[in-house]
Amino acid sequence: MTGMNIRIYNAKVLTMNSSTALIDGEVWVEGNRISYVGPGTEADKMPVWDREMDAAGNLLMPGFKNAHTHSAMTFLRSYADDLPLLEWLHQQVFPMEAKLQAVDVYWLSKLAIMEYLTSGITANFDMYLYSDMIARASVDCGFRTVIVSGLNDFSFSLEEIEVDYLRLNRFHELISYQLGFHAEYTTSEELLKGVAALAHKYQAPIFTHNSETKAEVEQCIGRYGKTPTAYLDSLGMFAYGGGGYHCVHMTDEDLDIFKKHDLAVVTNPGSNVKLASGMARISDMMAKGITVAIGTDGPASNNCLDMFREMFLVTGLAKLREEDAAAVAADKVLEMAVCGGARAMGLTDCDCIARGKLADLILIDLNQPNMQPLNNVVKNLVYSGSKQNVKMTMVNGQILYEDGQFHIGVEAKEVYQNANRIIGRMK
Amino acid sequence: MTGMNIRIYNAKVLTMNSSTALIDGEVWVEGNRISYVGPGTEADKMPVWDREMDAAGNLLMPGFKNAHTHSAMTFLRSYADDLPLLEWLHQQVFPMEAKLQAVDVYWLSKLAIMEYLTSGITANFDMYLYSDMIARASVDCGFRTVIVSGLNDFSFSLEEIEVDYLRLNRFHELISYQLGFHAEYTTSEELLKGVAALAHKYQAPIFTHNSETKAEVEQCIGRYGKTPTAYLDSLGMFAYGGGGYHCVHMTDEDLDIFKKHDLAVVTNPGSNVKLASGMARISDMMAKGITVAIGTDGPASNNCLDMFREMFLVTGLAKLREEDAAAVAADKVLEMAVCGGARAMGLTDCDCIARGKLADLILIDLNQPNMQPLNNVVKNLVYSGSKQNVKMTMVNGQILYEDGQFHIGVEAKEVYQNANRIIGRMK
Repeated sequence: MTGMNIRIYNAKVLTMNSSTALIDGEVWVEGNRISYVGPGTEADKMPVWDREMDAAGNLLMPGFKNAHTHSAMTFLRSYADDLPLLEWLHQQVFPMEAKLQAVDVYWLSKLAIMEYLTSGITANFDMYLYSDMIARASVDCGFRTVIVSGLNDFSFSLEEIEVDYLRLNRFHELISYQLGFHAEYTTSEELLKGVAALAHKYQAPIFTHNSETKAEVEQCIGRYGKTPTAYLDSLGMFAYGGGGYHCVHMTDEDLDIFKKHDLAVVTNPGSNVKLASGMARISDMMAKGITVAIGTDGPASNNCLDMFREMFLVTGLAKLREEDAAAVAADKVLEMAVCGGARAMGLTDCDCIARGKLADLILIDLNQPNMQPLNNVVKNLVYSGSKQNVKMTMVNGQILYEDGQFHIGVEAKEVYQNANRIIGRMK
Repeated sequence: MTGMNIRIYNAKVLTMNSSTALIDGEVWVEGNRISYVGPGTEADKMPVWDREMDAAGNLLMPGFKNAHTHSAMTFLRSYADDLPLLEWLHQQVFPMEAKLQAVDVYWLSKLAIMEYLTSGITANFDMYLYSDMIARASVDCGFRTVIVSGLNDFSFSLEEIEVDYLRLNRFHELISYQLGFHAEYTTSEELLKGVAALAHKYQAPIFTHNSETKAEVEQCIGRYGKTPTAYLDSLGMFAYGGGGYHCVHMTDEDLDIFKKHDLAVVTNPGSNVKLASGMARISDMMAKGITVAIGTDGPASNNCLDMFREMFLVTGLAKLREEDAAAVAADKVLEMAVCGGARAMGLTDCDCIARGKLADLILIDLNQPNMQPLNNVVKNLVYSGSKQNVKMTMVNGQILYEDGQFHIGVEAKEVYQNANRIIGRMK
């Protein structure tokens, strides 16, 4: 399937290339890259097409980047809800995860990938157990994944993540690997120092859960006299950048550290709402010029893997938090969901529609009642968009989802059966 | 089309009839009413079917009730965003509404009805201008609407709403009409006393926007020395029940008044988030035994007409507000979206799947990644459900939406064209 030439014409193109202006025209995909965007009048330069798709006036745009998730936690969706974070983690999640087998992660990741595709998500930043299975599931589906190690006192070792870093970054064009650890509160100082040493050894960014709950921050201050951000910074963790997932309870000093090291905040409003963790300081982060990306978090805590819901919540919670209906405008949210995510994940080749960029594209159905009238397409996407509007999702030049059908090398039913079999075995 | 006999078999049936337990079986619809729910073994009692629908193991349940909206405001979707409520209302909404013509409301209401159908909403509680056009749009689509008068100092008169009350309650089986006024802050005391007199004359419930913003409550206290709820109660407004839309900033005394008169709270979390109005005291309302229903509010403020988003927000904002991830469990939210709405709207004949009830039903696609695995269908609906899961929406025994196609007597394209023409004329 790779190497196809696809012409998508009669589209409204939202390039996200330094502006949210729309172009009426077409996009050409040759192999896995975009070879042209424009009015389509250069017919003499056209290659031979494997497929010409009439976009019928619908919106073509870069795919969303899900910048924080634990994909394979699909097995715990709607299994353990309505609990605070630490209780949920220790009483429900960890005991069930102990029963997970490597191959389970393969099927459970595929289930999440399917949902990403329905939501126009073309890449994920995935922290979970069994990295090889995550990589294999993504490659087999044709999906793009940045794996991040979830090192902690109970899972993985420094040696393992170093081996994975070297190996999985050369595994496949759809896979990359970033160094990370689960969180300050699950990882000993000795291990954290080891992670910081790896950051220096490979001049690599480091990612982790950071300041998700008030209790986590208070406990870290109790242990080390510093917030998680300040403490990790004091270990030299962020000398080569990286970022934090959640970042709900951040001090001004924390934000200054993020700015200083060019760290990305990956906000997870759906999960923060459902676990009652709080509302992140998105307006303040924007004011300081910090990169903000958006993640769904895992399906056990959210429970939905839906970038439309997350986008609405990013601006909605900011408005609530600041008591200001003008906080965090729609175009800024869209930039976070696309460009901010690409930046945080090291996927700067997938961040916009331009010649030479990787073809990670989505087609949004504007001929649905929630997109009408067409007063402002960007606001429609952020304030009233829905999975129902995703007509087509393309990753790396391949159409993986179109008109409700998956093209991921396996029947949807088989994935559902495996997911139910896995949780059934554990109950 | 009315009077068809439809058998829906091979379904998981969520009756919402005093429990959220599932029945594996089928539902029979004869004309506009449910004639049977059960295992389907009584084949000798079956009527002649106009259609037999294989639900393929998907979920059949009562439709959602959108208990507060201004449907025809679709024309302002994504037109004026990111403004506080009063500014938005006075600088953006009112000037544009002045340009509305009666027939515009017909087309704009139809656009909203289409979106309701995509979200599994089978009835709306609609406050807007040109009641006849609202009624006509609903009847022509086959949709169920409870119209509520939006009397204020600038629109309608007491005489008009009394005439409408008597006339529109006899207009068509799909239409009913409740007495109401826009809000305390837009309606003179003289008019309010007139509304209260009508409540007594007809022993009728009264509905209004209530305590949506902090400023509104403070101004009312400044004017009358009482909160809106206490002030309206002092006028005898609620002698025969009714309810309030929004109810974000409520005192304990306000809640006691609601309980005393059996008033319904219609919560509108999407709109309250987007306009930065605040988070309602849902947990406290539940603890007092107050009926809670859910509304999308209008498409100019929300901007989405999506009961799935609202359901997630009802529990999500309660969890955030109480800092308690256990607040407002999923089954309670589902009851609000179905039964609470039916109760508030006087549609107690549409509140569950049982013999003799009106056939307002939806079929939810469980064969989608966001609904898998099937750990808990009710939690799936509330926490990860989406418009994408709505396979079929039936109102009054008629299928109005199925597999992405509308059956409302008009082409979708014609509705979109009219909506764009209307806002285009105003700009």
